[in-house]
Amino acid sequence: MGAGAWGTALAKVLADAGNSVTLWARRPELADEINRTHRNSGYLDAELPEAIRATSDAAEALAGACTVFLAVPSQTLRANLELWKDHLGSDTTLVNLAKGIELHTLMRMSQVIVQVTGADPGRVAVVSGPNLASEIAQEQPAATVVACTDSGRAVALQRALSTGYFRPYTNADVIGAEIGGACKNVIALACGMAAGVGLGENTAAAIITRGLAEIMRLGIALGAKPATLAGLAGIGDLVATCMSPHSRNRSFGERLGKGGTMQAALDAAGGHVAEGVTSCQSVLALASSYDVEMPLTDAVRRVCHKGLSVDDAVALLLGRTTKPE
Amino acid sequence: MGAGAWGTALAKVLADAGNSVTLWARRPELADEINRTHRNSGYLDAELPEAIRATSDAAEALAGACTVFLAVPSQTLRANLELWKDHLGSDTTLVNLAKGIELHTLMRMSQVIVQVTGADPGRVAVVSGPNLASEIAQEQPAATVVACTDSGRAVALQRALSTGYFRPYTNADVIGAEIGGACKNVIALACGMAAGVGLGENTAAAIITRGLAEIMRLGIALGAKPATLAGLAGIGDLVATCMSPHSRNRSFGERLGKGGTMQAALDAAGGHVAEGVTSCQSVLALASSYDVEMPLTDAVRRVCHKGLSVDDAVALLLGRTTKPE
Repeated sequence: MGAGAWGTALAKVLADAGNSVTLWARRPELADEINRTHRNSGYLDAELPEAIRATSDAAEALAGACTVFLAVPSQTLRANLELWKDHLGSDTTLVNLAKGIELHTLMRMSQVIVQVTGADPGRVAVVSGPNLASEIAQEQPAATVVACTDSGRAVALQRALSTGYFRPYTNADVIGAEIGGACKNVIALACGMAAGVGLGENTAAAIITRGLAEIMRLGIALGAKPATLAGLAGIGDLVATCMSPHSRNRSFGERLGKGGTMQAALDAAGGHVAEGVTSCQSVLALASSYDVEMPLTDAVRRVCHKGLSVDDAVALLLGRTTKPE
Repeated sequence: MGAGAWGTALAKVLADAGNSVTLWARRPELADEINRTHRNSGYLDAELPEAIRATSDAAEALAGACTVFLAVPSQTLRANLELWKDHLGSDTTLVNLAKGIELHTLMRMSQVIVQVTGADPGRVAVVSGPNLASEIAQEQPAATVVACTDSGRAVALQRALSTGYFRPYTNADVIGAEIGGACKNVIALACGMAAGVGLGENTAAAIITRGLAEIMRLGIALGAKPATLAGLAGIGDLVATCMSPHSRNRSFGERLGKGGTMQAALDAAGGHVAEGVTSCQSVLALASSYDVEMPLTDAVRRVCHKGLSVDDAVALLLGRTTKPE
């Protein structure tokens, strides 16, 4: 459900793994293009398997589906699910692919799914890991986490997603997988800012490590397992997003670090705000409600929303008093 | 003790932090160059503080020193210490900067120090983190770990190393800090090999994450704390080494991945073997003696020492049966 880059790439993985796949695209023109040309040229540079059938009719896409992958932007998931919930089967596995925390409710995506659909939490799974869509589309080897509290569903999903180039690992820790995905874009913004200011690999590695530490503090407060955040859906996704020159969040931060204004960075990104710009607010609000300190996330929020300069943000972070790790 | 890139960069940090610093260089010509020009042009592109006094006389360097930083290659530490031990004060703090496991004895560097000098383990500390010497020399912000079981000495070292650009965190876990440093070069070789074959950020992030997982398994078996390996001396150092284009290990692996032979990679590196080529053997022997599985380290060893092709190594790693994370 969702024919952006990641929804499309995962549809290809599922088809390559031998599943029957229907891909829902919001726009009928896009569904037509995919059915006609087996490409989704606006989002992904790849030839799609002919077995993928696209439609813009959500009811048609959902009819009889044993598994539904939700690949719409995190802040639109609730509204979409309201439209779709009556078409979901009573035992369908619902898989969240969106990375974020809902503004205002401060809910994780799986919580939104449970609340809107009334599904048992054991029916809700998450797929998350270091999975840049463009590389998956090129069939470059990648690993990911399939998280579900119901181990039977986790293993079924693992099988459904296994191909020669895509390697899923099961994990029972849905909270950890979601927190890792929701927080990484904010840290990638911070990495981009540091690179934009001209700082090197030591600084980037320190930001990633201290970023992981604050993500772990939040995750543990919410009931996540440290091992999940030290794994593919935590540090793995964080490293890929922070290091990739293709990461929207890193590039956005880099423009700010080079002295660009928020408006200039927005314009350069074609008007698309990087996800971390939104999620730094919801992540920080969630952390505050659990009394968790997230200094890097707070610095990013102050740069993006309070007019703090990147130079001052860096000085602020380095100026913290020395203490134990 | 040791005027290579890292020994010299740390001498600069110590001088910048206000300490009186004597830098021992093996070659008298190098000590002369440093004293005359305040540069160590063969190893580091930086102007050194005039407060650094260099000497090639180890007895002179060690006389009256309250803290001794050991910055010689790991496989030469034992022989050097045998020459130096009678010049060490009875309460001197001994700080290991070398990253490796001694071949044959399979000892960590701090164990070698304790064995050769007879020092109480509480007198032995480790400084380790994402600290590319060239960036530290340029005063780019970096963080590091000062590990010592004696918390008083750890805090004293932290103070001695704190400057505006260098930020040490204390930690009591010497084992974790040493294992992180010893293992990272092997994983950097694997990252380089994958990049050389043409694989992208997803693969690199998966290698780093699975590399961290096997480093954690070994560390925990030896008594390290998981938090240390999830911190600056573990994942931090690993990320910096795996991602930096300046990393010797990464570059060496990249040449192998592009189809070069070991001999060609050696020639391109000016005859210098990358540290990971040696340490993959000692790390794996140590892991075997504790019944710890390290598939990435083993794949690197088989490429470097058993003639396995990089393509076959990648296929081997991806072909492992799917399982829980």
